Amino acid sequence: ETRDAVHLLAKQLDYKPNPTALNLRNQETKTIGVVIPWVDHNFYSTVLNGIIDEAKKQGYMVIILFSGDSLALEKSQVELLIEKRVDGILISVANENSDAHHLQEIIQRKIPLVLFDKTLEHLDCSKVNINDFEASYEGVIHLISSGCEHIVHIRGAQAAEAYKKRFLGYREALTDQGLAFDDSQVYTSEELSFEDGYALAEQALKDHPNTDAIFAMTDLVAMGCLAYCNDHNISVPDQVSILGFSNWFMSKHTFPKLSTVHQPIRELGEKAISQLVSEIRSRKEKEPVKHKAIQLPTSLILRETTR
Amino acid sequence: ETRDAVHLLAKQLDYKPNPTALNLRNQETKTIGVVIPWVDHNFYSTVLNGIIDEAKKQGYMVIILFSGDSLALEKSQVELLIEKRVDGILISVANENSDAHHLQEIIQRKIPLVLFDKTLEHLDCSKVNINDFEASYEGVIHLISSGCEHIVHIRGAQAAEAYKKRFLGYREALTDQGLAFDDSQVYTSEELSFEDGYALAEQALKDHPNTDAIFAMTDLVAMGCLAYCNDHNISVPDQVSILGFSNWFMSKHTFPKLSTVHQPIRELGEKAISQLVSEIRSRKEKEPVKHKAIQLPTSLILRETTR
Repeated sequence: ETRDAVHLLAKQLDYKPNPTALNLRNQETKTIGVVIPWVDHNFYSTVLNGIIDEAKKQGYMVIILFSGDSLALEKSQVELLIEKRVDGILISVANENSDAHHLQEIIQRKIPLVLFDKTLEHLDCSKVNINDFEASYEGVIHLISSGCEHIVHIRGAQAAEAYKKRFLGYREALTDQGLAFDDSQVYTSEELSFEDGYALAEQALKDHPNTDAIFAMTDLVAMGCLAYCNDHNISVPDQVSILGFSNWFMSKHTFPKLSTVHQPIRELGEKAISQLVSEIRSRKEKEPVKHKAIQLPTSLILRETTR
Repeated sequence: ETRDAVHLLAKQLDYKPNPTALNLRNQETKTIGVVIPWVDHNFYSTVLNGIIDEAKKQGYMVIILFSGDSLALEKSQVELLIEKRVDGILISVANENSDAHHLQEIIQRKIPLVLFDKTLEHLDCSKVNINDFEASYEGVIHLISSGCEHIVHIRGAQAAEAYKKRFLGYREALTDQGLAFDDSQVYTSEELSFEDGYALAEQALKDHPNTDAIFAMTDLVAMGCLAYCNDHNISVPDQVSILGFSNWFMSKHTFPKLSTVHQPIRELGEKAISQLVSEIRSRKEKEPVKHKAIQLPTSLILRETTR
């Protein structure tokens, strides 16, 4: 009734529709919204390059928003994306995230949603990440098989799922190989910085002088550990092996070159976009949407800091 | 007439306005659009952190789009931002940029526009950047005053204004100090990578065995030069001084620690946002908008790779 009356009036007044207003009713905006915790010096800038390239290939523009690892900001960024009528949303959730109402709302509005990197297990949507537990387990098994028995682990913030899983992989590798797990050999880096690695290596080697390996949950921290050893004439890897995580491009330029766990970071962004686009297309063609839990394979890169 | 007729009809039909459609007429969206060439491993991720933090303080959300250093993509990203009705736009222009029609359109639509980092001189809007010429000039003057006479320069792509100005600063410093400028001492890094620095240092030292300093236009390239010297027992800085540019956080972690030109990268992002927000407010309050050309000061950081 409303529509008919308005159309009749429009005709009488010779009204020309406003293209921007028309766009409101158009299903497709050919834009994808991405929410990530932060732009750092390596992980997210690499993931974004994968996202942007793949989206471009598939004919989509990308709007990037940042949550600053805050749940409140993540919520308002999601509202903004819904308001801007993006065709689909990619999110790497904020660390402190525990409440998923705003993500449920995306699902209820039938906007395709893919979580990547930092995901929430219970949410009914597609997820793209790596198996942090297995990646870490495999790395620590290598340290043990190369003769290390007193392995220090430097982990990240308690709240982050990925760091928790890497820690659990470390612990399980130790116990599976018959080595005692000792809580005091686990240190936490809050800043994930080079300086943190340097200071924690110093602390760990004071607390546990028999340490023969350090496994750090990210390369920059491992590089700080390596610098501490170099500065104090602690031979790497003969005296202390050092293993990083991520395979940041700088890790191959250290002296000696850093051994690390390779994460396919760029591919993570590409895969997340291609899954999202396939869900956008299914929805458009009214086909059933299949959610997938995709885990990309990692690999151990043995350079010069491990035996 | 149209408005009255529609309002009357709306009343008759007890019509409730759609909040999204209402938003179309609202002047303010409290969002700022940012277009940058790329997310790399250092410069733009740092600049983005400055932009996001300052925008948050001022009560604005940020939409980030990427031009991939392509003029065509930059144009469509600008169209998208206009369509999404952002309150203001910040752009670091694509390298190949020569045509500013799409930027003129922003100005004609009276959307506040600030160019930062890579700017276009002739455009009538505010600009925030550093003085690349002076920063580079000052660095090379230091190399000369510390006794270097055969200074190689590694520059970036020809099309980029900033690299051109750094090169001109290098050339002028040489001639001002009575040293001959020799074109064959200037090398170009296309990739701006560590590997490029390594390979170009090798080439330069073969072409010019008497080289006593290398000035590279970005730290990562300088770090590659340093690695080449370290690997080939060329003493730094006794035999060859090395000077970088940017003061990337990794430059203080090299061995020996890299001397470099500090760019206030984070502040560049903050200043660009605060100028843009002040123009958004002036426009809202119908006050005259004052365009500014802001150049942030750089400084020479002398660590261990220069005499």
